Amino acid sequence: MPSFTDPDTTIDAFHRGRFFLVQQKRGAHRAGMDALVLAAAVPRDFSGLAVDFGAGAGAVGFAVAARCRKASVLLVERSTEMADCAERSIAHPGNSALASRISLLVADVALTGKARAASGLADRSADFVLMNPPFNDGRDRATPDTLRREAHVADENVFEDWLRSAAAVLKPRGRLALIARPASLGPILSALAGRFGGAEVMPIHATADRPAIRLVVRAVRGARGVPSLMPALILHEQADKRFTPRAEAINAGEASLFMD
Amino acid sequence: MPSFTDPDTTIDAFHRGRFFLVQQKRGAHRAGMDALVLAAAVPRDFSGLAVDFGAGAGAVGFAVAARCRKASVLLVERSTEMADCAERSIAHPGNSALASRISLLVADVALTGKARAASGLADRSADFVLMNPPFNDGRDRATPDTLRREAHVADENVFEDWLRSAAAVLKPRGRLALIARPASLGPILSALAGRFGGAEVMPIHATADRPAIRLVVRAVRGARGVPSLMPALILHEQADKRFTPRAEAINAGEASLFMD
Repeated sequence: MPSFTDPDTTIDAFHRGRFFLVQQKRGAHRAGMDALVLAAAVPRDFSGLAVDFGAGAGAVGFAVAARCRKASVLLVERSTEMADCAERSIAHPGNSALASRISLLVADVALTGKARAASGLADRSADFVLMNPPFNDGRDRATPDTLRREAHVADENVFEDWLRSAAAVLKPRGRLALIARPASLGPILSALAGRFGGAEVMPIHATADRPAIRLVVRAVRGARGVPSLMPALILHEQADKRFTPRAEAINAGEASLFMD
Repeated sequence: MPSFTDPDTTIDAFHRGRFFLVQQKRGAHRAGMDALVLAAAVPRDFSGLAVDFGAGAGAVGFAVAARCRKASVLLVERSTEMADCAERSIAHPGNSALASRISLLVADVALTGKARAASGLADRSADFVLMNPPFNDGRDRATPDTLRREAHVADENVFEDWLRSAAAVLKPRGRLALIARPASLGPILSALAGRFGGAEVMPIHATADRPAIRLVVRAVRGARGVPSLMPALILHEQADKRFTPRAEAINAGEASLFMD
C-alpha cells in the first residue's frame, strides 16, 4: 500500500489550496487546466450528484466538490492505478472538508446496458455528468508509456460510447459537460444528437489570435434546443505569458465558465 | 422587362460604392452583412473560378469579384425573379469594371448527377464554391411571403444536398466557404465528412458577450485535416452600436476574414 510519501507520486494543490490531488509523478496523465475549466462548467449553486467519467486522480470531481458546496461527487475510473491515486486523494488530510461528499467507483464508463448497471453506474441516478475523455495528441506517439497511452489514446468511438452511457446515467433534464479538442466537434455533435439538446459550445483559446485548443460542450439530457456557440475563453494574454483575469479566476475555483 | 427605375427594386451600394446590387424592395431576401462576411473568406489573391451557390441578387459573388481582381465569378440561382435582379446588377453601369468577370446561371444547385451537369454546373470546374444557404429563422413563420419563404425555409437536407454538389463541382483541393447559423453546425460537419477536410470554423458574434449569430466554415475538397475553431469575428462594440474596426473593414471590402 503506497504511503503519502510514496516517491512515485506527488501531492499537488489546486484552487489556491482548497483541494489536493495525489498524482503519479511520471507517465500517467496529470491533471491541469483542462480539468479546472471543465469543473467550472457546473454552476456554483448546483446541488445533486455529479459523476466524473474517467476521473483519473479526481481533479474534475474534486474541483466540482470544492466549488459547489451542495454537490455530491462520484469519481468513476477504470484504471486501478489511477483509482488508487483518487482514493488516496480522498483520504488526504487537506481534503477533509470535501471527502464526505466524494466517492469512488472503479468501473469502465464505456460498458453498456446491464453490465454498466452491474458495475455500479445506475440508470437515471445522476444530475450532472462531466467528462474529459482520453485523446491522442501527436506527442504521445513518441512516448510509449503505458499509462499515458491509456489516458490519451482515443477510441474512435469514445464520444459515442461515453455519451451513450452519460445519457443512460443521467436523470431526465440532467446536464452534461465535456472538454475535448476542436477536432472532435463533429463526433461530439453526432453523439449528442437525439440524446441531448441545448448544447452550448465554448471555444478555449491559448491566446486570442490563435485557433482554439479545446472546447467545452454543455448540454441537457432530453432537451430539444439547437446548439449555440458561446463567447470564447482566452487563457493567456500572450503566448506563454500569465493567465487572463478570467482564466486565473477559473484556475482559482472562483469563477464559472458560463454566465450562470 | 423591368427598367432601372423599376419601383419594385432598389439599387444599393456595397464596399463603399465599389459595386451595386439591384434588389427586390420588399419580400425577397435582401443582401447584407452575411454576404460580405462570406465573401471575405476568399483570400484577396485568389485567382480562378468562384461559384456562388444560391446567389440571389449576387451579393456574395459581386463582393468576391470586387475584392479579388484575378477571380472570375459564376452566380447560380434557381429563382428566375432573383436571377433577373442579378442580371440587372451585372448590366448596371456602376458595375462596369466588374461585369466582364461575372456570369449568371439559372439552375438549382441541389440537382444531382447528370441533371446537375446538364443544368450547366460541370464537375471539377470550380476553384472556390461559396454558399449562404436558405434558412428558416422563426420570424419568417409570421410573414407568409413567398419569395422570402423560398429564400429562408431550410430543407432539412440543405447542407447534405448543397455540399454534395459543391464537392462535385470543385476541382481537387478546391475550396469551400459557407455562412450559416450555429444551429446548423452538426449537419454541416456531417455533410463535410469524407468530402472536405481542414475545416476552419469561425464564430460570428453580434457582440463579444453574446452567443454567435452566425458561423463561417471554410474547408478544402479532398483534404484530410481535422476541424479548427478560429478566433471569432465580433461585429459590434455594443448592441446596436457601430461596427468594430475589423467588421467595418470587412463591410468595406478591405479586409479578409481569415488570416490569409
